[in-house]
Amino acid sequence: MSGRLYGLGVGPGDPELITVKALRLLSSAPVVAYFVAKGKKGNAFGIIQGHLKETQTRMPLVYPVTTEALEPPLCYETIIGDFYDESAIRIADHLEAGRDVAVICEGDPFFYGSYMYLHDRLAERFEAEVVPGVCSMLGGVAVLGVPLVYRNQSLSVLSGVLPEADLKERLATADAAVIMKLGRNFDKVRRILTELGLDKRALYVERATMANQRIVPLEEVDPMASPYFSLLVVPGEKWQA
Amino acid sequence: MSGRLYGLGVGPGDPELITVKALRLLSSAPVVAYFVAKGKKGNAFGIIQGHLKETQTRMPLVYPVTTEALEPPLCYETIIGDFYDESAIRIADHLEAGRDVAVICEGDPFFYGSYMYLHDRLAERFEAEVVPGVCSMLGGVAVLGVPLVYRNQSLSVLSGVLPEADLKERLATADAAVIMKLGRNFDKVRRILTELGLDKRALYVERATMANQRIVPLEEVDPMASPYFSLLVVPGEKWQA
Repeated sequence: MSGRLYGLGVGPGDPELITVKALRLLSSAPVVAYFVAKGKKGNAFGIIQGHLKETQTRMPLVYPVTTEALEPPLCYETIIGDFYDESAIRIADHLEAGRDVAVICEGDPFFYGSYMYLHDRLAERFEAEVVPGVCSMLGGVAVLGVPLVYRNQSLSVLSGVLPEADLKERLATADAAVIMKLGRNFDKVRRILTELGLDKRALYVERATMANQRIVPLEEVDPMASPYFSLLVVPGEKWQA
Repeated sequence: MSGRLYGLGVGPGDPELITVKALRLLSSAPVVAYFVAKGKKGNAFGIIQGHLKETQTRMPLVYPVTTEALEPPLCYETIIGDFYDESAIRIADHLEAGRDVAVICEGDPFFYGSYMYLHDRLAERFEAEVVPGVCSMLGGVAVLGVPLVYRNQSLSVLSGVLPEADLKERLATADAAVIMKLGRNFDKVRRILTELGLDKRALYVERATMANQRIVPLEEVDPMASPYFSLLVVPGEKWQA
């Protein structure tokens, strides 16, 4: 009998923000896989490291590229697609041998998580279960101490990578918004918020719920130093019930 | 010394989807408060009931109204505002007496949770901490087994209560969408999805992760029987990495 594939959300950073269910399944999985950047330990791995036993096989899936510029004919899409293919094959080997594999994911597996690319490759051949997690966005609003959306307000979750005009249009019509993937896009996003008069309402946090979390006033953020794991939140207008 | 106010997300329904942190704080809180409809047990309470000790004070906050139509001069906003005022006073009594109060919230406290209205009334006077939870939206996509948003896709979280034209416009420009608060609005939302050609992509689930969860094909949903805790998900187009 084949093993089961698990996509386990382990939450936004604080190891205590893992769910009881993810912790149970993590503890009993013979193989634990996780994505990690070259030379790094991996955020998801750091979150759950304290719970792993010696007997569990650890399978780091090391990204061949991250966000660096590539010289043609090198192409991000091809390189990353090949990497996900190979990662899926390595996991399938364990599943075919009857071993369950838990892929741990920072935040939630289906909310911008790389686990999705494994799920798309494996879930038709093997039994797969996803355990939802606390996403970074909700970790962010919790530490900022600000309600995100009231009543019938609409929420727009946007990537800082979007082109300026597109991002501006989407922000202009949002009741509340969260902008992720800031990093090098921070300056552009702050400019748009200012143009829309949303800069006074917007809040910024880096690495929410992690040990090195930082909350910084928008105007004091150094755009060259904004990490990938930072968030901008435009909370919905307070509903005076 | 005053007690601390906690807003504890307890997850979408499955009692195992509570976080380790919420469970720890829940267990040590002398007073546990929760919102509940008249004559009901309360969803959040049902989730954590098994973890409560006899010695913990239970404080149900019973909504005076839910979604029924009101005859003038009765006004939903006034009634519900008064109710939140009174609930905040009851909680403040405990906090002033030095007792911590944990307000348990289905899903996440700051993501459409009623806890927000207590937070807005109490967080300036008392120390308050919010523990984020797995929101119903991510519980829904997990059990549907479908990635929600890839890469730089935008996500729109919308209320089914929105006027038809507004909802249609927002859905037309969304890369991925989740529509909450369906209930009596289901028929309108399904019609809009069909007009936009999104009905084939949309997925429907009732009470995701709860014991009585139901996943029903869109065309088979009985619009008169769709509960409040149902979701429509339009997942982002698969990104072929």
